[in-house]
Amino acid sequence: MIRVVCAQVAPEIGDLRHNAAMSAAAVSSAAADGADLIVLPELVTSGYLFSSTDEARAAALDPGSPLLAAWGRAAGDAVVVGGFCEAGEDSAVYNSAAVVDRSGVLAVYRKTHLWDAERTVFSPGTAAPPVLDTRAGRIGVLICYDMEFPEMTRGLALAGADLLAVPTNWPLVPRPSGERPPEVVTAMAAARANRVYLACCDRTGTERGQAWTEGTAIVDPDGWVVASAGPGVASALASCDLGAARRKTISAVNHVLADRRTDVYDQF
Amino acid sequence: MIRVVCAQVAPEIGDLRHNAAMSAAAVSSAAADGADLIVLPELVTSGYLFSSTDEARAAALDPGSPLLAAWGRAAGDAVVVGGFCEAGEDSAVYNSAAVVDRSGVLAVYRKTHLWDAERTVFSPGTAAPPVLDTRAGRIGVLICYDMEFPEMTRGLALAGADLLAVPTNWPLVPRPSGERPPEVVTAMAAARANRVYLACCDRTGTERGQAWTEGTAIVDPDGWVVASAGPGVASALASCDLGAARRKTISAVNHVLADRRTDVYDQF
Repeated sequence: MIRVVCAQVAPEIGDLRHNAAMSAAAVSSAAADGADLIVLPELVTSGYLFSSTDEARAAALDPGSPLLAAWGRAAGDAVVVGGFCEAGEDSAVYNSAAVVDRSGVLAVYRKTHLWDAERTVFSPGTAAPPVLDTRAGRIGVLICYDMEFPEMTRGLALAGADLLAVPTNWPLVPRPSGERPPEVVTAMAAARANRVYLACCDRTGTERGQAWTEGTAIVDPDGWVVASAGPGVASALASCDLGAARRKTISAVNHVLADRRTDVYDQF
Repeated sequence: MIRVVCAQVAPEIGDLRHNAAMSAAAVSSAAADGADLIVLPELVTSGYLFSSTDEARAAALDPGSPLLAAWGRAAGDAVVVGGFCEAGEDSAVYNSAAVVDRSGVLAVYRKTHLWDAERTVFSPGTAAPPVLDTRAGRIGVLICYDMEFPEMTRGLALAGADLLAVPTNWPLVPRPSGERPPEVVTAMAAARANRVYLACCDRTGTERGQAWTEGTAIVDPDGWVVASAGPGVASALASCDLGAARRKTISAVNHVLADRRTDVYDQF
């Protein structure tokens, strides 16, 4: 069993100093709560609603930044997955996520599916997201809108991920009374289809008039929400048996991955 | 707008005469309610829990059967999608669905993903499910466990289906209090990921000790359940604007199908 914490914090746009201290404090606090894996929101180092690439570039970091290393130090024995605004060596700016532990940055993933005005600010990544053997388990990484593509969640499950860490900034959208945020429904179905955990960490606060869903949710391989952080709630914590995500068998003969009929899918 | 009716009926195992009359009556009743598309459960002509292929073969039909043609006559101007136990020309028995209108059988699809003991009874299909231009619109067909594979729902959306008709027999499984059946969560996510309608028609009754979920649900392209038939409810009816399923755009620049990054998926 591992303890997973999603820290539903509120970065301030462009204020790296504030966001560095705030995110490191969230990591420290989660580690003190016994977390093995700590997920932070998308673009937690920088905020989200940049009006231009130049504005984002002024808040961008390279993966060697002390800010990311500080997450690893604050984490103790835990692993951190958090979003950051990345200054590419090619001068492009990426909406990225780093996987960090006390040894440093283990991997960086650049969001491949860009949402709405992100396309005017960020360059899309071109590499598939990583699956990493970390001290907390086999972790895959996606960022927000990436998760809406079943190809991505399936691909990470096929690549062996037991848990998908998903830093997000979910803009608040209308939904029928009594319903979960639609992104959480998507996470539940992805978890069930692949028998993996998903840990989606949303943000809170408002930014340049944008309200967020505050829909942080941790979902188990049966597809049920085992922890969530609604509006005004600072974090979600769940104990996750990653071994359950290795058991893909759902009847005497059915297996969610082995049952795939690629011979049929190739006909579409 | 089309009116979609899912008829959550109860076939009797092996009793073709009963099932023929019962299913034709359900089609007539739905047509009288103004239905344009009528979905019947999986294996509605035969029942489900056969103990052997031989027993299923005794209840199997070929697609030229008068039983299926009778659905088309009972349907008036409507289109029917319903499950039947198919006697293959190869002497195999298939868990199939027929698309029928008053002109006759338009297409037959053989379930490709077989659930549990179905594997000891039925042969799996080898062809991708059809997308048909019917008088009710562009309809794709899946059967029960097929829908659990995101590749199938995505494939039908890419092939142009606006609505997926899904005859099912969902065995009742435990779920947390207050939750929808897990299959409905999957349908909601598939609808939203692809901006299509899904009309999942479950069955009712018990059969050889098996209880069914009675989880019939019609889901819109935003992923919300617009009609359902719970335990003891005979049908679900919804007006569906299939034009909404042609609008795949979800922001100023995002499109649920055009945003796919096949260059990234190919790296998995």
